[in-house]
Amino acid sequence: MSAPVSVTVWNEYLDQQRHSRIAEVYPHGLHNAIADGLRDLLGEGASVRTATLGEPDQGLPQATLDTTDVLLWWGHHAHDEVTTATVQRVRQRVLAGMGLVVLHSGHLSKIFLDLMGTSCNLRWRNDGRQELVWTVSPAHPIARGVPHPIVIDQQEMYGEFFDIPQPDELVFVSSFAGGEVFRSGCCYRRGAGRVFYFSPGDEDYPVYHHPDVRRVLANAVTWAHNPQPATVPTTTHSPDSPDGWFRERPSAPPVTSP
Amino acid sequence: MSAPVSVTVWNEYLDQQRHSRIAEVYPHGLHNAIADGLRDLLGEGASVRTATLGEPDQGLPQATLDTTDVLLWWGHHAHDEVTTATVQRVRQRVLAGMGLVVLHSGHLSKIFLDLMGTSCNLRWRNDGRQELVWTVSPAHPIARGVPHPIVIDQQEMYGEFFDIPQPDELVFVSSFAGGEVFRSGCCYRRGAGRVFYFSPGDEDYPVYHHPDVRRVLANAVTWAHNPQPATVPTTTHSPDSPDGWFRERPSAPPVTSP
Amino acid sequence: MSAPVSVTVWNEYLDQQRHSRIAEVYPHGLHNAIADGLRDLLGEGASVRTATLGEPDQGLPQATLDTTDVLLWWGHHAHDEVTTATVQRVRQRVLAGMGLVVLHSGHLSKIFLDLMGTSCNLRWRNDGRQELVWTVSPAHPIARGVPHPIVIDQQEMYGEFFDIPQPDELVFVSSFAGGEVFRSGCCYRRGAGRVFYFSPGDEDYPVYHHPDVRRVLANAVTWAHNPQPATVPTTTHSPDSPDGWFRERPSAPPVTSP
Amino acid sequence: MSAPVSVTVWNEYLDQQRHSRIAEVYPHGLHNAIADGLRDLLGEGASVRTATLGEPDQGLPQATLDTTDVLLWWGHHAHDEVTTATVQRVRQRVLAGMGLVVLHSGHLSKIFLDLMGTSCNLRWRNDGRQELVWTVSPAHPIARGVPHPIVIDQQEMYGEFFDIPQPDELVFVSSFAGGEVFRSGCCYRRGAGRVFYFSPGDEDYPVYHHPDVRRVLANAVTWAHNPQPATVPTTTHSPDSPDGWFRERPSAPPVTSP
Repeated sequence: MSAPVSVTVWNEYLDQQRHSRIAEVYPHGLHNAIADGLRDLLGEGASVRTATLGEPDQGLPQATLDTTDVLLWWGHHAHDEVTTATVQRVRQRVLAGMGLVVLHSGHLSKIFLDLMGTSCNLRWRNDGRQELVWTVSPAHPIARGVPHPIVIDQQEMYGEFFDIPQPDELVFVSSFAGGEVFRSGCCYRRGAGRVFYFSPGDEDYPVYHHPDVRRVLANAVTWAHNPQPATVPTTTHSPDSPDGWFRERPSAPPVTSP
Repeated sequence: MSAPVSVTVWNEYLDQQRHSRIAEVYPHGLHNAIADGLRDLLGEGASVRTATLGEPDQGLPQATLDTTDVLLWWGHHAHDEVTTATVQRVRQRVLAGMGLVVLHSGHLSKIFLDLMGTSCNLRWRNDGRQELVWTVSPAHPIARGVPHPIVIDQQEMYGEFFDIPQPDELVFVSSFAGGEVFRSGCCYRRGAGRVFYFSPGDEDYPVYHHPDVRRVLANAVTWAHNPQPATVPTTTHSPDSPDGWFRERPSAPPVTSP
Repeated sequence: MSAPVSVTVWNEYLDQQRHSRIAEVYPHGLHNAIADGLRDLLGEGASVRTATLGEPDQGLPQATLDTTDVLLWWGHHAHDEVTTATVQRVRQRVLAGMGLVVLHSGHLSKIFLDLMGTSCNLRWRNDGRQELVWTVSPAHPIARGVPHPIVIDQQEMYGEFFDIPQPDELVFVSSFAGGEVFRSGCCYRRGAGRVFYFSPGDEDYPVYHHPDVRRVLANAVTWAHNPQPATVPTTTHSPDSPDGWFRERPSAPPVTSP
Repeated sequence: MSAPVSVTVWNEYLDQQRHSRIAEVYPHGLHNAIADGLRDLLGEGASVRTATLGEPDQGLPQATLDTTDVLLWWGHHAHDEVTTATVQRVRQRVLAGMGLVVLHSGHLSKIFLDLMGTSCNLRWRNDGRQELVWTVSPAHPIARGVPHPIVIDQQEMYGEFFDIPQPDELVFVSSFAGGEVFRSGCCYRRGAGRVFYFSPGDEDYPVYHHPDVRRVLANAVTWAHNPQPATVPTTTHSPDSPDGWFRERPSAPPVTSP
């Protein structure tokens, strides 16, 4: 029996999220709606906690990150308030093997910009019409058990050109009522970590209560989890390596069944 | 608790494999050495059987394929004896979601040629010197728990140019004593199925007894297993689809925790 | 001054294409409409000829292929009439460096199926409504000079899931009036050759008279042209290569400026 | 006749480069050796200038960047001296369509780190032994006219794991006398720009005088040049886009033959 995946759901959770129309859709905050979905679908396979910007160390002290297998990130209006120190802590953990799932408006979060290297800009229009999410990689574990397409009745439009690196694996492509398309489910590997961007999920609509969206997020957590990252010391420095350096090392650690 | 992965290890297992120098290295055939490695490492997580060319339906009747989650393929001298019917049965199952792990000289097997669309030719030299297998994708599950590099003391040289499509994910690159390099661990998705090619494993050397090679194969089985392939009816035909075809379907089947 | 690109535009050009509604849209056949577009846009940079199924050797004798840098392929109802011999001749030339541009219903041509290794099935509906073709790779030469999106007023719907290998480079994604999406511009490398699939272009609509579609095809010819393929003898066999084989070769041929 | 490609070769060119053993190998600096190679091979097809860190605006004022089609970058000991402002100017131009060729120790330059999003660390050993550069993508224009392998008699070892995103196109893989391998030629697209990393080229050895290395750099300039970048306003901001925004635009600009 393998240990449960340790998941942290982070939300900026500003005052306006607590006291606005958003609170009608997500009375306990987006983070708790997302966390509840993961608990329902992953059951004992995951241990899920939440964190918010207003907490000490912006909710992500080193001790939390060190015990997080997969981090989900929801932010929109407070990207600038996230400090460089927080971004660096998250980034180091991703390169060392922590999974990262970036949601919706997180496309402009500092951590996503930092890992992508591009502007991550896109076109948008908040008119609350239909989004259809089509699977283009049915062999991918993130697409397991979801219909083709996922129908989301009300959603903000996100449209191309989306200025991201070509995904290592493109899982979903969306269309919108206005005719736009969007690469809405994108996988990347960075160092020993895996990153998934999923665009459905505006705060104005009950997207995170949608059973298929919840399924995608549960699948994404399972995919992003890297329980035994390969030893890659070169992610922290560039070592001078004498001839035959790889022959003198101690024998490989014992491996256990997955 | 999920069901064990149903694995079939196929070997051409010709007479010369039974009665030659190979039999000293693999007294019960390569397939049984490979199967034993999977049983040791995956334990109750897998149910492993073997099949050979000389059996009815070339060891792969429809009933076997229909109950196989992941097929491993070892062939060398008898590629031409595999019938078109066998290749088509395997191919259909791969596109429908069965995993396929192609080993070593299987690069010229009909099924691999068919799924790749290229010549799959390469350079080779059977001089039994050292191969080093380097991980270039530490975030990939197939690289879990293997040293960097894997040191194989005696192996046939396989060298570039290897005429394959660019892999969806390149996991391993090997170097050889003669200075050649080779893309030795390559992932592809085809339809709803996943394909992994792994080059180490000549019949003249005890490569499949090597603990790190066994670990790679166990990881590959876990990766290639697609327990709940997305519904992709278009892999069997190109349907005329009336406007709104996706709205009239019955509600999605109930999804269960992975 | 480099030599003009030698282009061959192939069309099945059946009787019904000569004597039907199609003939109103394309009085001289689709192949001549396509060829005219290339001549207009590439000028002295290209030498363009046409070929059809009814000609000797199905329009593609070895001598034609040997002097073709880029082949465009349009077929729909006569895929089965193309012989294995023709497919093999084309395939060998692609792996040796000839470019191949596969158009619209050519997704089920034998040569495309052969090079992809998948079923290449898709969903379709011929209702003659709007297709929008969005650029998702603005750094790609095939996207040069085309608007975002290309608006095609009347077109057949082609929808996902499109059962192809993940493209090496995805250039265009289309949306349709019915809400479907489609990966409509896909690049692949096979051996020393380059393959581009472009879906807009039904015979019922004047798509190949559209200035932006003509621009895409001209760009595709330029991209697919590989004037000096790397020497890759292993695309024709798998040579036994003695230690140091690469040191004894004659000096490299003189290279000339592009 | 198209305009020549405007190329700028940038070198940190510190005092020690001017007055050391390096000056014996490159008496006029690495930048001039590289520039001479491009002029010899591209002839009238390119207009080549050089720039160094000690010049005003670190050699890269906006006016220079605005008139540069492809920038080559050589740096090693002065990465930290490159200012954030310089990095931002270069980055904006890359996303807007300027090509960037990053050389050897430039793997740790700020601009490369910024565009990759990873640590870009690697293993190294400066023992001046042989590097073999193998082509793994013979259809790629950067591999045109180079032997397989390129033999470089004396070179610093750069070895995996190289912490980069999976390349969009992997063109070269190197082996070293010590048995290490390295992804030595890697293509990326970022925004409307193209980036090529090429590792051969230490300052201690006459690598940039090697005819095959010069050929690779000339090919890389041609490949990285994007003469007519697609219009992608979303690389500079994320615009609110009213329904049908793409229908009201003025007609497409006239396109000209390439």
